Amino acid sequence: MDRSFQLISSDTRTAARRGRLQTAHGVVETPVFMPVGTQATVKCMTPDELRELGAQVILGNTYHLLVRPGTELIAKAGGLHKFMGWDGPILTDSGGYQVFSLAKLRKISEDGVEFQSHVDGATLFLGPREAMGAQAALGSDIAMAFDECPHWPCDREYACSSLELTVQWAARCKEAVSSQPSAVPGRQLLFGIVQGSVYPDLRERCARELVAIGFDGYAIGGVSVGEPPAEMTRQVVMTVPFLPPDRPRYLMGVGTPPQMLEMIAHGVDLFDCVLPTRVARNGTIFTARGTYAIKNARCREDFGPLEEGCECYACRHFTRAYLRHLFWANEVLGLRLMTWHNLHMYLNTLKRARAAIAAGTFEDFRKEFVGRYHAEEER
Amino acid sequence: MDRSFQLISSDTRTAARRGRLQTAHGVVETPVFMPVGTQATVKCMTPDELRELGAQVILGNTYHLLVRPGTELIAKAGGLHKFMGWDGPILTDSGGYQVFSLAKLRKISEDGVEFQSHVDGATLFLGPREAMGAQAALGSDIAMAFDECPHWPCDREYACSSLELTVQWAARCKEAVSSQPSAVPGRQLLFGIVQGSVYPDLRERCARELVAIGFDGYAIGGVSVGEPPAEMTRQVVMTVPFLPPDRPRYLMGVGTPPQMLEMIAHGVDLFDCVLPTRVARNGTIFTARGTYAIKNARCREDFGPLEEGCECYACRHFTRAYLRHLFWANEVLGLRLMTWHNLHMYLNTLKRARAAIAAGTFEDFRKEFVGRYHAEEER
Repeated sequence: MDRSFQLISSDTRTAARRGRLQTAHGVVETPVFMPVGTQATVKCMTPDELRELGAQVILGNTYHLLVRPGTELIAKAGGLHKFMGWDGPILTDSGGYQVFSLAKLRKISEDGVEFQSHVDGATLFLGPREAMGAQAALGSDIAMAFDECPHWPCDREYACSSLELTVQWAARCKEAVSSQPSAVPGRQLLFGIVQGSVYPDLRERCARELVAIGFDGYAIGGVSVGEPPAEMTRQVVMTVPFLPPDRPRYLMGVGTPPQMLEMIAHGVDLFDCVLPTRVARNGTIFTARGTYAIKNARCREDFGPLEEGCECYACRHFTRAYLRHLFWANEVLGLRLMTWHNLHMYLNTLKRARAAIAAGTFEDFRKEFVGRYHAEEER
Repeated sequence: MDRSFQLISSDTRTAARRGRLQTAHGVVETPVFMPVGTQATVKCMTPDELRELGAQVILGNTYHLLVRPGTELIAKAGGLHKFMGWDGPILTDSGGYQVFSLAKLRKISEDGVEFQSHVDGATLFLGPREAMGAQAALGSDIAMAFDECPHWPCDREYACSSLELTVQWAARCKEAVSSQPSAVPGRQLLFGIVQGSVYPDLRERCARELVAIGFDGYAIGGVSVGEPPAEMTRQVVMTVPFLPPDRPRYLMGVGTPPQMLEMIAHGVDLFDCVLPTRVARNGTIFTARGTYAIKNARCREDFGPLEEGCECYACRHFTRAYLRHLFWANEVLGLRLMTWHNLHMYLNTLKRARAAIAAGTFEDFRKEFVGRYHAEEER
């Protein structure tokens, strides 16, 4: 397996790292936040706007694309990049998480899961072979192994058998990815997913078994499924030591800006989260001083930007008063501009984190950031 | 009254004219289509995108802005231009049409109408004085006189008394506009609105009385209120001869691309219509060959643009198959791109009309355009 990940520098006071991940559609500087493009679009945004925001890599959801419009159609279009007009790197999940959380399950076996589409009720089947086939059809740069993600809390017995299934499926995914041609040129990277719930020995065992199979990167799964924040940290801390330092580490579905910085300090390189785009649609604004709701009366006659000092398109051109009006009037432009700002805040935070790691000042940056972020939230 | 409108050329075979309207925020080349920005935003679009589309002037709805967020707030923001970030010309309607069609009416008098906001039930009052005050607070470049717009069909007696009220209100608007300071520098133009329903003598009388008062431009109102297309043409044809040739003529709420071209041939200079933006949200695409629905199965695997040969942003970057997917997935990006295309189609049609008038080929252009447009629609 060729080396796709290069470590540029490591922080001396924390486990934070600056890295560079080479993909078929370009280089990703890590640590990185990946905006989520569930249905072949990062909600409200054009690919040009994502580029302008400095997004390096986006995430596509295999389950959603499988049920609509279908991965065959996307393959006919020349792959997901061409279909949606994004020529940068794309990571696709395996669909496993959504099958277990969104679909109506029919039958689970060692080969995978038979389920009904939540869109039209069609009966579909997804297992390691099918998940890799779908991701090959999508032509993503980074594919995820098909896993079973236990909920929280989860008893030891379930966590153990789920882990065994996950490792077995991961091995099959590894076999499948080497045998399938991708819709796009360049090798598709494959990441394994460490499960094991809250049990340190199970996390270690899963990590060791996956590393023995050998993947281009490793994800920490089974987090952001309802557990308290401290529990998430614990799971990351118990898993990272068993992951190879020369492979990228991806914490799935995380999180808030302070959470990401904390996890970077624990050695995580990649993040994805629907928060900045999803809550924008409820009028929640992310800033360096925490979040606030645009619908609040105090924004009514506030002719300042969404965030003082922010250089995003929304903040350079529009006021809180205007955004509040658009929010209450249910105007699409409001969703666009708030999404724009929130994504900028996330991407800019990660950009600052990369610079701080390179400058050897990451822990100071993180502490100051978290302090300011929570000071305002508690007001 | 200074001369704001300049006739550049007149067609020899039709009554079409090329003109230039000077406003406080720049020049408008006529004939022109004005995208509708009801709630201080042309739905789905940023002002930058409108500029990129070549929009010269947009329309704001006084009634909608009055009930939310309130014209006082917009005045505090420095006027509608600053509030919404559009520095080109804005025409505002008087609110009369929406008061009579959207609000719950309480009391009608010679001074105006007491009504309840359709948003929060607040009791408001709008008459000629208030409508001019609101439009001054918005700081629009072109204000419309407050009128009463009869429905169709409308009996002669009602049309007659409605006309008398409209003329009386127009006179009061003329008085009010000269006495009120505008929120923006530069003189606010004021257009009168000709009513009179389907009755030629009433249309003539209304036009003559308004011209005697003297306005910067004249609108033909009471059209696009449910009457058959031929009836609309008849009303325009019976009204235009009584309007001064050296003033711009505005046909309110019209229409489809062939309708606009027909009305240009009858001497109309300005149009506004919600059609291109509204139907985009239902997935209806305007093209030179008529309209079609993106949701149709035949678009499923169509990897061509929304319209072959179109140079709009949506057509340069995305396929019908992708737009159809976004439509069925209820994705905001789909609304944006279809709105973009439809506005481009409208604005480009008017641009071609202006060029054809200047070149003396307008009638040929119009006939060819209408022929091709309807040929496809009938397929």
